Amino acid sequence: MSRQPHVVVVGGGFGGLSAARGLAGAPVRVTLVDRSNHHLFQPLLYQVATAALDSASVAMPLRRLFRRQRNATVLLAEVERIDPGLRRLHLEGGGSLDYDILVLASGATHAYFGNDHWAPWAPGLKTLDDALGIRRRVLMAFEAAEREPDPEKRRAWLNLAVIGAGPTGAELAGALAEIARHALRDEFRNIDPASARICLIEAGPRVLGTYSERLSASARRQLERLGVEVQTGCKVTGIDADGVHFEGRPSLAARTVLWGAGVAASPLGACLPAERDRAGRVRVRPDLTVPGHPELYVIGDLAALEQDGTPVPGIAPAAKQMGQYVARAVRARIDGRDPPPFRYRHYGSMATLGRRHAIAEFHGRELTGTLAWWTWLLAHIYFLIGFRNRLVVMLDWAWAYWSHRRNARIIFGEPPGVVPPDAPPGGEALPAVEDAQEVGAAPGKDDPAAA
Amino acid sequence: MSRQPHVVVVGGGFGGLSAARGLAGAPVRVTLVDRSNHHLFQPLLYQVATAALDSASVAMPLRRLFRRQRNATVLLAEVERIDPGLRRLHLEGGGSLDYDILVLASGATHAYFGNDHWAPWAPGLKTLDDALGIRRRVLMAFEAAEREPDPEKRRAWLNLAVIGAGPTGAELAGALAEIARHALRDEFRNIDPASARICLIEAGPRVLGTYSERLSASARRQLERLGVEVQTGCKVTGIDADGVHFEGRPSLAARTVLWGAGVAASPLGACLPAERDRAGRVRVRPDLTVPGHPELYVIGDLAALEQDGTPVPGIAPAAKQMGQYVARAVRARIDGRDPPPFRYRHYGSMATLGRRHAIAEFHGRELTGTLAWWTWLLAHIYFLIGFRNRLVVMLDWAWAYWSHRRNARIIFGEPPGVVPPDAPPGGEALPAVEDAQEVGAAPGKDDPAAA
Repeated sequence: MSRQPHVVVVGGGFGGLSAARGLAGAPVRVTLVDRSNHHLFQPLLYQVATAALDSASVAMPLRRLFRRQRNATVLLAEVERIDPGLRRLHLEGGGSLDYDILVLASGATHAYFGNDHWAPWAPGLKTLDDALGIRRRVLMAFEAAEREPDPEKRRAWLNLAVIGAGPTGAELAGALAEIARHALRDEFRNIDPASARICLIEAGPRVLGTYSERLSASARRQLERLGVEVQTGCKVTGIDADGVHFEGRPSLAARTVLWGAGVAASPLGACLPAERDRAGRVRVRPDLTVPGHPELYVIGDLAALEQDGTPVPGIAPAAKQMGQYVARAVRARIDGRDPPPFRYRHYGSMATLGRRHAIAEFHGRELTGTLAWWTWLLAHIYFLIGFRNRLVVMLDWAWAYWSHRRNARIIFGEPPGVVPPDAPPGGEALPAVEDAQEVGAAPGKDDPAAA
Repeated sequence: MSRQPHVVVVGGGFGGLSAARGLAGAPVRVTLVDRSNHHLFQPLLYQVATAALDSASVAMPLRRLFRRQRNATVLLAEVERIDPGLRRLHLEGGGSLDYDILVLASGATHAYFGNDHWAPWAPGLKTLDDALGIRRRVLMAFEAAEREPDPEKRRAWLNLAVIGAGPTGAELAGALAEIARHALRDEFRNIDPASARICLIEAGPRVLGTYSERLSASARRQLERLGVEVQTGCKVTGIDADGVHFEGRPSLAARTVLWGAGVAASPLGACLPAERDRAGRVRVRPDLTVPGHPELYVIGDLAALEQDGTPVPGIAPAAKQMGQYVARAVRARIDGRDPPPFRYRHYGSMATLGRRHAIAEFHGRELTGTLAWWTWLLAHIYFLIGFRNRLVVMLDWAWAYWSHRRNARIIFGEPPGVVPPDAPPGGEALPAVEDAQEVGAAPGKDDPAAA
């Protein structure tokens, strides 16, 4: 072995990061390719969007994380396509990268299920840019309402809708209610921010539908206590400049609509010679490889795997465990051993809804309210990567807890004044698509928390 | 007096903020108009640009600051023009605002002295957006160098030029040298970030020319010790995609050029019936009003005032003192008293160059090096608005001090991959303008620190 095998990891999320770090010291060359320069602690991204945390608190430069791992190279680039025959990645803007082993961990993004023309009116939350865009939109809505003399138009600025009551949607809605009721109190002279309506809209029968009925019902009560109007069984047929349109009920005039409804797998999965499920995720073997390609691993939100008859959930701990497994498997194969199949261990999962409001489930035990919230808090501080990030986040949270303030309430990146949401691309009036919104239907819906 | 006088303050910088806050409880209605939603602690803005601080650490929401001041309203809007005859402000996007007393504190911006086509290649630093743009450019330059196989092109990515050795330019250059030499150490595999050349280019004979010759010479030595190449007496004749071109010496191939050279007053000054100086600043009377218009105050960087034969400097403490004076003067006039003229008290000024490198001057006493740096540090933490900001900044700095790390190294707002600087608008090849760059020539050059 004059030349060490080249392991290329695509994606610096929880899965890719664990795989690449797990290979520290192994007799391989590792290249981690990501299109952004940072690992994102996605479970707290909604807090950046709702101005509770600043961006650097939930992001770590990838180069920093691999500084001391001498067998690893970080490459800031976007993978355009994969050629599994040549074992080659083609990068955007030219250039290519040959691999001996590929670990594809490029994750998922939010999806509009065929209604991409809704995107400009209802931004989703996957990247730091998304989070800052949502923050700007929400804060500007209150500014616009403050300046708007017409009561009906003002009302539309004070109606905020969140589509999809999965974890992201529920967390966003709870945080928006806190902003309106507490963070902005006394700061406006023409409007009362607390009069804002926060509507959480879900096509399915309940909120946080992946949890038990009991936890789900508790979540709904908690959200309502926080001031969120929860509307279940409510099918969206259109989103435009005027607001949200529904099947069989009146439209909601809302200038601010956020999308928390669905995820679709990274399009890179389509380059692989493998079967994919309805959400575009790649069906992998129990050792996380693609059938017939022992050099092709797919992990994290992009992988579709069943274990004991239930799908492995698309949550951070699962991605981490998969990454760690791949690193161990690669080491085993180098040593000439056969790696055992991957086993996902589910410890639990939780979702936060607001100050002292959350639900959690551990090994079948269920928690709600204050206790669940404290558990959520400690788990998230513990899992936040980087000592300094943890400190700053704790400080921000402690401060926010007793002051009800949100410190990251800074708007940038937009011209001043009352800024309407971006005009839709093209602006063509597409017909509303029936059955378009399948809230919570995509398997592998990202669950922002689990211990 | 059935109706209270309406005092409109334009600009939420140090001057406008002090004026509006100084009127708390006074029998007036106060409206503070700003185009951004936050007050910016501008002296530390270069630290956001160089990834040492996150944006929320140097910005405070204006509404938060005026939450409890019941006679004050904050308006997020851009003033388009002033009609002093009607005592009316016209806002961008329609709408107007009538005033009884106007306090114009709209400050200054960076200026290219007739070479606005340099702007896309050499961004300046005045707003949070500017800072994040510069951060992105600097970090992406190292990423581009890492990916560039051609040695000459790689060299151009590793040459970073700062034009203008005033406080902003000197601080930026010192921070860039620290990034290259320390913060990025061991993080790249194809380049050595420490091999980057940081060139500080100044047309005048010395750096930080507003300080004494002794301090200026010390600053130069300190910068060189930090790894900055200081080039004085160096007249820029052009900046383009290839780099910087000079009068009578070879060009510098640099893909990253930052502009710290000059400031020009806010264009709103031109709306007033008053004389302006060469930098566009409004000449005010000793009571800071415009001659013949006792209802028109101009303060901060927009005001040109001489005191005892020397101009009042364009620094934060001067703006603050002016704002406080205006608040007292307005109160006095309401009480029927005649306010005494404004007196600027100069306590000192300082500029930081890097870790334990700074210069400072207090009441004629001069400090350099470590002692100046500690003074600078304490003064800036003390003057940072907001308890939480101070804590976070201290934490970030303490962390950075012993780890050499920069925590805010997050790139956003750009497509991935190697991103060249924005294409110039139009791209027309304008002839190089002689005598165009007048580094430090604009009076009222912003001095980012003084106690």
